Amino acid sequence: MAELSVVPIGTGSTGLSDYIAAALREVKRAGVKYQLCPTCTVFEAELDTALSVAKAAHQAVIDSGAKRVITTLRIDERLDTQRIMEERVERVTEKVK
Amino acid sequence: MAELSVVPIGTGSTGLSDYIAAALREVKRAGVKYQLCPTCTVFEAELDTALSVAKAAHQAVIDSGAKRVITTLRIDERLDTQRIMEERVERVTEKVK
Amino acid sequence: MAELSVVPIGTGSTGLSDYIAAALREVKRAGVKYQLCPTCTVFEAELDTALSVAKAAHQAVIDSGAKRVITTLRIDERLDTQRIMEERVERVTEKVK
Amino acid sequence: MAELSVVPIGTGSTGLSDYIAAALREVKRAGVKYQLCPTCTVFEAELDTALSVAKAAHQAVIDSGAKRVITTLRIDERLDTQRIMEERVERVTEKVK
Repeated sequence: MAELSVVPIGTGSTGLSDYIAAALREVKRAGVKYQLCPTCTVFEAELDTALSVAKAAHQAVIDSGAKRVITTLRIDERLDTQRIMEERVERVTEKVK
Repeated sequence: MAELSVVPIGTGSTGLSDYIAAALREVKRAGVKYQLCPTCTVFEAELDTALSVAKAAHQAVIDSGAKRVITTLRIDERLDTQRIMEERVERVTEKVK
Repeated sequence: MAELSVVPIGTGSTGLSDYIAAALREVKRAGVKYQLCPTCTVFEAELDTALSVAKAAHQAVIDSGAKRVITTLRIDERLDTQRIMEERVERVTEKVK
Repeated sequence: MAELSVVPIGTGSTGLSDYIAAALREVKRAGVKYQLCPTCTVFEAELDTALSVAKAAHQAVIDSGAKRVITTLRIDERLDTQRIMEERVERVTEKVK
């Protein structure tokens, strides 16, 4: 499970959707299962794929014209069991009911 | 817009859903609009409310028995315009089509 | 232990030191023990103080002219023992020797 | 500039220095210039090196026995100019005097 966010700096505009779209295209291109959240993109991938997706997304924001980019990748790897994104949300949702 | 994640440390178990549920209950109790994502919870709130929700969620994880808790609150405040969570996701999704 | 970072968006400049300085002034004003790192500021404070420092720092970046600000506060609270910032660094440094 | 943090989950102990030391050894092994902060490690590296260091550090925590690991890598790349870690801290420190 990986969580990705990209933030271009010094763009002169408070809107970031063009840059985030450029990054998201790389997530899609990688063919991984993903979910776009309001503040980040979560996707399921092996460690190597997660790193290469982060690299491609970061580079895509630079290619979109940003002169400074802060990219945050959070990798949450669990060895004893694997839960897909929907399971994670469901397990918590049920307990909060 | 605020993004919240809580991570209990030293619990002896790799599963965290009980703790995350305890934190999410506080988000619900605050009456803010929220979305549970696979790796975090996003909610819409004024700055003061966001901080008090984070405090309550952090405390709820401690009250659930965790002896060490790492809570991350990311506040994304935009003054020129306001977008709700769905708008954010839609704007990016449309551009990636 | 709290870690704080502020990122102004849409400023038109890639340099952020003016904004970070505005935020750091609030950390100093709070009278907490702090350490300025290359990518964040770490300080020691009770939970309530940590939240109020984050609020003041976030507001200071807005008051410096940023129309959008992303502030990240990470709180790492440990109940069984307390370690000051220097101890944390030392314990790891010794083990890596 | 990269910021790295590793958090093992479910270890049964609130102390993390053994795991952080394992991760830091990988940063050192890579030969990059680094600074150990109380809550993270900051280092200077090209993008590819930053990613491979994060991978090695993440793997080292797993090899130390953690069954679940959350690794956060924040990459801050600036194209118009380059500032080393000390410059970043100095520029802000001077403005806050």
